[in-house]
Amino acid sequence: MTRILAVGRYSDVDAAALAAMGAQALPSAAALAALPAALRAEVHGVAFMGHESFGAAEMDLLPALRVIANFGVGYDNIDVGAATARKVLVTNTPEVLSDDVADLAVGMLIAQSRGFEAGIASVRSGDWQRRGPLPLARRVTGRRVGILGLGRIGREIADRLAGFRCQIHYCARTPRQTPGWTRHGDPLSLARAVDDLVVAVVGGEETRGLVSAEVIAALGPDGVLVNIARGSVVDEPALIAALEQGRLRGAALDVFWNEPAVDPRLAALPNLLPLPHVGSATVESRAAMGELQRRNLSAVLAGQAAVTPINAP
Amino acid sequence: MTRILAVGRYSDVDAAALAAMGAQALPSAAALAALPAALRAEVHGVAFMGHESFGAAEMDLLPALRVIANFGVGYDNIDVGAATARKVLVTNTPEVLSDDVADLAVGMLIAQSRGFEAGIASVRSGDWQRRGPLPLARRVTGRRVGILGLGRIGREIADRLAGFRCQIHYCARTPRQTPGWTRHGDPLSLARAVDDLVVAVVGGEETRGLVSAEVIAALGPDGVLVNIARGSVVDEPALIAALEQGRLRGAALDVFWNEPAVDPRLAALPNLLPLPHVGSATVESRAAMGELQRRNLSAVLAGQAAVTPINAP
Repeated sequence: MTRILAVGRYSDVDAAALAAMGAQALPSAAALAALPAALRAEVHGVAFMGHESFGAAEMDLLPALRVIANFGVGYDNIDVGAATARKVLVTNTPEVLSDDVADLAVGMLIAQSRGFEAGIASVRSGDWQRRGPLPLARRVTGRRVGILGLGRIGREIADRLAGFRCQIHYCARTPRQTPGWTRHGDPLSLARAVDDLVVAVVGGEETRGLVSAEVIAALGPDGVLVNIARGSVVDEPALIAALEQGRLRGAALDVFWNEPAVDPRLAALPNLLPLPHVGSATVESRAAMGELQRRNLSAVLAGQAAVTPINAP
Repeated sequence: MTRILAVGRYSDVDAAALAAMGAQALPSAAALAALPAALRAEVHGVAFMGHESFGAAEMDLLPALRVIANFGVGYDNIDVGAATARKVLVTNTPEVLSDDVADLAVGMLIAQSRGFEAGIASVRSGDWQRRGPLPLARRVTGRRVGILGLGRIGREIADRLAGFRCQIHYCARTPRQTPGWTRHGDPLSLARAVDDLVVAVVGGEETRGLVSAEVIAALGPDGVLVNIARGSVVDEPALIAALEQGRLRGAALDVFWNEPAVDPRLAALPNLLPLPHVGSATVESRAAMGELQRRNLSAVLAGQAAVTPINAP
């Protein structure tokens, strides 16, 4: 039989749909080694969900593996090179979540700039009545905003911000067709040209630390940094120092270096708006992501082309 | 001499600019009666800021009054009829704050739909690590959104939401030139046609209770209500009941019936995102509002036309 492992913590709906395909649930890839070797030898497909590492060691425990279908667009935790070397196809779930991640990025920029967290607390606590208005916030309309990575999600963010009459600058390896937006060749040049910066590049080794201490310094004490991509893209200790010392006005992060174990210094910063990696966490996106994951899995196991493959082993 | 009273609690910058025009500071209109009659008789202009009532009684304390220059676009607290009857010109500060109010409305819709408050708390408290992810939120892109009142601010909100591929419906007394948006003649028809509703009408008697229990019921358990206009437009007890009973998914309010003394039942609702009337509370808008208020005051007192008059006495 073709055995499928559903690795990760799925919603009831997705867990049921995977079970209907004959998948066996496994809460974590760390539990792979504990499975009987005879069972592992029969596994042809892995439905993967989560941010834990899935590399050569895990793949070697599944000698008959043909496909890793990731639930999510980012796959920096999956060793695609190791998969290709083992003739394992890797798929992801792009596009279906781009709108949600873009909505989140724009909402985070507004909420951070306009002081939503302090405002909500002021009403709930009664401080509005007792102590009066909060210090003035800052405008979003018309800001110069840099988009680091103008892929599908970055483009959706830029399109939305254009509706706020923001001047869009971007950094991408290749020039894109845009309505007059300004391209920059590197993050530092981008940061120097803008007020605020939104990180929308892929994760992984090639983007690690791209938002360096120098880039953060170039944004300066009037700048806001938004990251909806991967925590690894930002030099987190440099960001914490800049926020603590007021060298950056604010930040809004949906992703962190060591999530969900967020650095307590970050969690305590009043000029940071933190969210628990909810970029795609809507009923609508998650339903579409689960469906696309299962379509990829079924297609490959049936010997057909994957819908959204990452590699070509 | 031409005496000016600066009524309200101004920022240091605005207080200094008004003092430079010779204005005398008065924290509240309630303190008018305590001023010597001889001083009151010399007052030609009032720079007004705040949401307290300014009506016939206050105007009659200032028999030589010629202009009330309001700091803000909304003037439902000023009795314009009484002013006109006394040949007193009233001015406000439109346009300069429209962008900020529109940004806020869009940010509130995103923050409410995407669960920002619970998300922030989950990271700050460590619950993300201890208890795992929150329940899924809901998408904003593509929602059918009704704009109640397509004036300057309503239009700016709709233009921004169009960038989120929202289908825009609106309610306005007269049809407007729009890119294919659907007009409705009354709030109930509007609420029945949309998922979410954003209130952007003027305050005052003619819009009181426009968002009735019936309108809220028409939005239903999947709907979100955003109000950045005036608390008086919404039937607040009906809203509280609907939110408490889950008959409306959520609300985001920047304005309330009895602000800043917000109803404790509202302040305790988890499906309400409350903000302390910060629609124009940015450094940028407040600077522009103060400048426009002073330009109106100076013009009228110099016998010239006001920049942004409300009445024509």
